[in-house]
Amino acid sequence: MTQCFIRQCVPAAVKAGTLCFALCAATVVNGTDRPPLVIRDQGSLIAGGGLITQPGVFDPYKPMMPDGQTYHGDHVYAFYQVPVDPRPLPILMLHGAGQSAKSWETTADGREGFQNIFLRRGFSTYLIDQPRRGDAGRSLVETTIKPVPDEQLWFNQFRIGLWPETFEGSQFPRGHTAQEQFFRSITPNTGPYDIEVVSNGVSALLEKTGPAILFTHSQGGGPGWLTAIKSRNVRAIVAFEPGSSFVFPEGEVPAPIPSAFDTLSGQAVSQEQFKALTRIPIVIFYGDNIPGQPVRLPAQDSWRARLEMARLWRDTVNRHGGDVRLVHLPEIGIKGNSHFPFSDMNNVEIADLVSKFLAEKNLD
Amino acid sequence: MTQCFIRQCVPAAVKAGTLCFALCAATVVNGTDRPPLVIRDQGSLIAGGGLITQPGVFDPYKPMMPDGQTYHGDHVYAFYQVPVDPRPLPILMLHGAGQSAKSWETTADGREGFQNIFLRRGFSTYLIDQPRRGDAGRSLVETTIKPVPDEQLWFNQFRIGLWPETFEGSQFPRGHTAQEQFFRSITPNTGPYDIEVVSNGVSALLEKTGPAILFTHSQGGGPGWLTAIKSRNVRAIVAFEPGSSFVFPEGEVPAPIPSAFDTLSGQAVSQEQFKALTRIPIVIFYGDNIPGQPVRLPAQDSWRARLEMARLWRDTVNRHGGDVRLVHLPEIGIKGNSHFPFSDMNNVEIADLVSKFLAEKNLD
Repeated sequence: MTQCFIRQCVPAAVKAGTLCFALCAATVVNGTDRPPLVIRDQGSLIAGGGLITQPGVFDPYKPMMPDGQTYHGDHVYAFYQVPVDPRPLPILMLHGAGQSAKSWETTADGREGFQNIFLRRGFSTYLIDQPRRGDAGRSLVETTIKPVPDEQLWFNQFRIGLWPETFEGSQFPRGHTAQEQFFRSITPNTGPYDIEVVSNGVSALLEKTGPAILFTHSQGGGPGWLTAIKSRNVRAIVAFEPGSSFVFPEGEVPAPIPSAFDTLSGQAVSQEQFKALTRIPIVIFYGDNIPGQPVRLPAQDSWRARLEMARLWRDTVNRHGGDVRLVHLPEIGIKGNSHFPFSDMNNVEIADLVSKFLAEKNLD
Repeated sequence: MTQCFIRQCVPAAVKAGTLCFALCAATVVNGTDRPPLVIRDQGSLIAGGGLITQPGVFDPYKPMMPDGQTYHGDHVYAFYQVPVDPRPLPILMLHGAGQSAKSWETTADGREGFQNIFLRRGFSTYLIDQPRRGDAGRSLVETTIKPVPDEQLWFNQFRIGLWPETFEGSQFPRGHTAQEQFFRSITPNTGPYDIEVVSNGVSALLEKTGPAILFTHSQGGGPGWLTAIKSRNVRAIVAFEPGSSFVFPEGEVPAPIPSAFDTLSGQAVSQEQFKALTRIPIVIFYGDNIPGQPVRLPAQDSWRARLEMARLWRDTVNRHGGDVRLVHLPEIGIKGNSHFPFSDMNNVEIADLVSKFLAEKNLD
């Protein structure tokens, strides 16, 4: 805490230096061991999206008729916070499938998520609800949402354990309350998932934020790669367990990788598009309990295939002069992480790895 | 600013007093005329909701089969912030139809909303996404979302003006950019709107927050009244333009009020339930451009009927010993407010009226 605190204040004027000291005193007054967050500005904004205009003329006496009316949708929503004396590059955080900005907020067991952790480390944060999700819910395409029970699928797929047992030594938050908070944090698509719509939305957000670091999770990985292709403002990507939609240059797409869950294919982009991914530093993190060899269980085998594809992708980008690092956490001695390393019980340790990467690449 | 700043700091220890001074200095360093927000704690939580359990046994080899799986839904989501030295009662903010927590965040023209304004005034804030909306999107009931153009309906219904003209002297944010931000802030129901589900969710949130002040907007007014009946933790209600679902004691429900938009009926509750609404101070605000006499235009006439019903409701609660104040803003010389007084261009003036009410009732 003290360290990140000093980081925030030392570059500022003498009076701001005084601020740090006073804040430490205040935290004692507040009876918590955490200093308060000192937020220079916060709010929300909406970017990108499309528009439907119904032919005809709007009749204010028949307001339920769509004629001549408009419908804005497919935009992205973000809640942002700017700490005092922020670091130059803000961090945009893009959630995964069935998730929302909540992914980066309070963890299921009530600890601080990456939103607070990186604010405390002096970064401005933008927490995204992607197009057709959460508070960015208006979709230009119709959809039906059915409450089909699926939580045991996710429990296994997210490598929390093998339902109902949590993996031994798992870093996923324990207990009934945490599990319920986690299940209730799932929120549906309000329109069909469309990787182009999502990456267009995030690119539009980057037009408003300027150069930034992009954190992605799981399904967000694919739109993350496309966003870096579409927007020069992506200066680095930190991808947690990207699940699919790895993009390769035409002619270099590897053979599909079959698994007990699905058959995973790479996506082809032009050599020119692919170049964008060789211009920025990228780090990818995968957690624990991913089998090294094919297994029968779909939830397990899917990640064996995804990690394998991620390694092929890393090698391809680096062969083209890129800078992709893949960190399989157990290989560096960090055990028990689920599909959500950024909110697992050791998420401060994971944040330290991210901070180290950002420092190495002079992104902080 | 300075005043609210002193309010935050004077009750604290001497060192915290130093904090204010240092922060004012810091704001100069930051080149903004607003002091930073000093947040002791922030995060999100989920409360209430129900559960579907599919009969049968979960088969991890057939994870797409719902058998034996669960589905949590109909809960409420809230993002909370606690300033240093907070006032005793937090403020819960419940949005209206088609809206979300975004209602209380940055305004369509980029000013601070009630989230920041009341944080600056020392209140903890809880911004709600109600059950089946936004980041609380999982619904236990199926729904279909169709992109049917309707924004001109809302433009008129929300008394921004008569499309495409904004009312002369309107306090609604002007310009194309603000209008687009506003239209894109609309987000759909992910399940059927259910006033009981919403009020159960907000009541469950109040179990976690303890005693609180409830702000409601529009459609949120109805669940607000029911929440005060269901939860003793509602200590006051500030209702902005409640649209319908006014509750009256059995035998005292007034005659329905017809309008060119619909026929507005009061809802009956037991005398015992109604008593809860007589035990807390309530203030209701309505904006401008509500006709005093019946008019042909549905969007306009609907508010003539709603304001009339609100007055009958005020009189009924007060006749039973309650404390309801209805403020029709033009009657006190505040002109041009739309259906969104808390985010209109004069929202600081509106916040001052709310602060005055809270001070009078010793709620701050």
